[in-house]
Amino acid sequence: MIRTRFTEMFGLQHPIVQGGMQWVGRANLVAAVANAGALGFITALTQPTPEDLAKEIKRCREMTDKPFGVNLTILPSITPPPYAEYRRAIIEGGVRIVETAGYKPQEHIDDFKSHGVRVIHKCTAVRHALSAQRMGADAISIDGFECAGHPGEDDIPGLILIPCAADKITIPMIASGGFGDGRGLAAALALGADGVNMGTRFCATVEAPIHEAFKQQMVANDERQTDLIFRTMHNTARVARNAISQEVVAAEKRGAKFEEVKHLVAGVRGRAGLESGDVDAGIWSAGMVQGLIHDIPTVKELVERIVAEAESIISSRLAGMLVARSEAVA
Amino acid sequence: MIRTRFTEMFGLQHPIVQGGMQWVGRANLVAAVANAGALGFITALTQPTPEDLAKEIKRCREMTDKPFGVNLTILPSITPPPYAEYRRAIIEGGVRIVETAGYKPQEHIDDFKSHGVRVIHKCTAVRHALSAQRMGADAISIDGFECAGHPGEDDIPGLILIPCAADKITIPMIASGGFGDGRGLAAALALGADGVNMGTRFCATVEAPIHEAFKQQMVANDERQTDLIFRTMHNTARVARNAISQEVVAAEKRGAKFEEVKHLVAGVRGRAGLESGDVDAGIWSAGMVQGLIHDIPTVKELVERIVAEAESIISSRLAGMLVARSEAVA
Repeated sequence: MIRTRFTEMFGLQHPIVQGGMQWVGRANLVAAVANAGALGFITALTQPTPEDLAKEIKRCREMTDKPFGVNLTILPSITPPPYAEYRRAIIEGGVRIVETAGYKPQEHIDDFKSHGVRVIHKCTAVRHALSAQRMGADAISIDGFECAGHPGEDDIPGLILIPCAADKITIPMIASGGFGDGRGLAAALALGADGVNMGTRFCATVEAPIHEAFKQQMVANDERQTDLIFRTMHNTARVARNAISQEVVAAEKRGAKFEEVKHLVAGVRGRAGLESGDVDAGIWSAGMVQGLIHDIPTVKELVERIVAEAESIISSRLAGMLVARSEAVA
Repeated sequence: MIRTRFTEMFGLQHPIVQGGMQWVGRANLVAAVANAGALGFITALTQPTPEDLAKEIKRCREMTDKPFGVNLTILPSITPPPYAEYRRAIIEGGVRIVETAGYKPQEHIDDFKSHGVRVIHKCTAVRHALSAQRMGADAISIDGFECAGHPGEDDIPGLILIPCAADKITIPMIASGGFGDGRGLAAALALGADGVNMGTRFCATVEAPIHEAFKQQMVANDERQTDLIFRTMHNTARVARNAISQEVVAAEKRGAKFEEVKHLVAGVRGRAGLESGDVDAGIWSAGMVQGLIHDIPTVKELVERIVAEAESIISSRLAGMLVARSEAVA
């Protein structure tokens, strides 16, 4: 077992988080993560209405008596979702942990905090982490360039981002982006994090509610099979490389305008895409950690394997490298 | 002390390498690194002729009786340097360790190996590391996206690249790119490396033969103050961000041709630039690790601090997180 400030604060067995993933963060996966002793998040906006979210929270609680959370991602939008109502569903549903992500989380953090809900804010830059800490977040999830989805526009990988953030952040912090095995967990802890968040790796598990073909594709892909799209719109997303992502990259390279790029990605996407089994029919998120995914275990097998590997690295591999100075001199 | 396959193979006190750096890898720095118990490399092509390299090797040996090496970087060129003569200077100078980098190292590896010289090949992709291992390299230096100079075109950071390489490489491997403190060393060892290579961090030391102004600029810069240039020429280089690097980035973005970009970077560059003290007069290499550089210690202070920090992380921070399963259940 590995105990950190993060596991202590949130009452977890393991310093491993399954953060918010649109279309994937549903009760079945989240309950499996909770039952494995890690921390899973239902993605609020995957549910079409706040009422559906309330039902999903209830459904999750029926499957586990361990802590789980809800992710609330704040997107800049002309017609935003009814955030206040989603927050009500979370608070009234008795959820005690929320992961926020996106722009200007202050009003959300304030509301959650005033109801005794702990907030982990996910961000991709040290300055945003500092800002969230000032806003009252209880913990930070710092997300590096390697990650699936939105890595931000700074392109700072975890090896740099984690210690840079650790130098300034005093609240517990988990490292996100590029994690999938015990080596990564041990490295994150060495770099100053108190745990890891994993997205892509949890997608390649038995319980993830996506078509088997996507899971097999993640196993088949190596670390180079991702593309960064929407860079020209300053809304960069890392997605699995396929014919459509390559078309988007080419279009952006030649200076295509927003409407054209939007048209290119308007194929099978989102929930319908992930349920279809056609990995080439649309754009889907995946991180570089694909290069470290070689199987599709259950969530429990995955979490236990990662913790056991990290324990072994710490107590055997690393400890075995230490030589007393007296011995070295002799 | 930290002992690994790498320190054993090369007879080093510490698993830390100062790899080849054009204009910087000179005898004074390399001898200081050797005397600190780490492994430094004289950069062969920094010396204008093979005769000058022979003299630099001799000069280094007068300053240290510890092992040191020479870097030989193989650049595709219409009028290549006299590589065979540089190799002679290395072999006849009694150097026992060489770092190769660049394209098609086979003939160089063959020549060095036939003279009992050990070769560390530096590369930026798992497939190139595998190829070097097949060619007979004794060790690999795997260089991630974070690094100064040439990160390659795959953009895979160390957090992913190191374990991906470790899964396939059987010879000792050091991790390069983004390393500057004990947290990074401990993380690299956790990820499967047998040590770390540092470039930028060794530039910000008392002994580095570059103008103080560059060292102060590296201390002042944070992790975001680098730019990737020459991407459109498939010869990407990570450099310190300044007005000229930003001009190059802008020119490449609007599709400028090679000649125009070349003209932009034709200012004070290379040796003259590093000696001038004008950090804005030209392009100079620096890695993202700038964000973790806060002082300008001697080489000895730096190496000892890094090892002590890594030892403490392994024996205190990480070991302290381990909880016996019986205790956790109780």
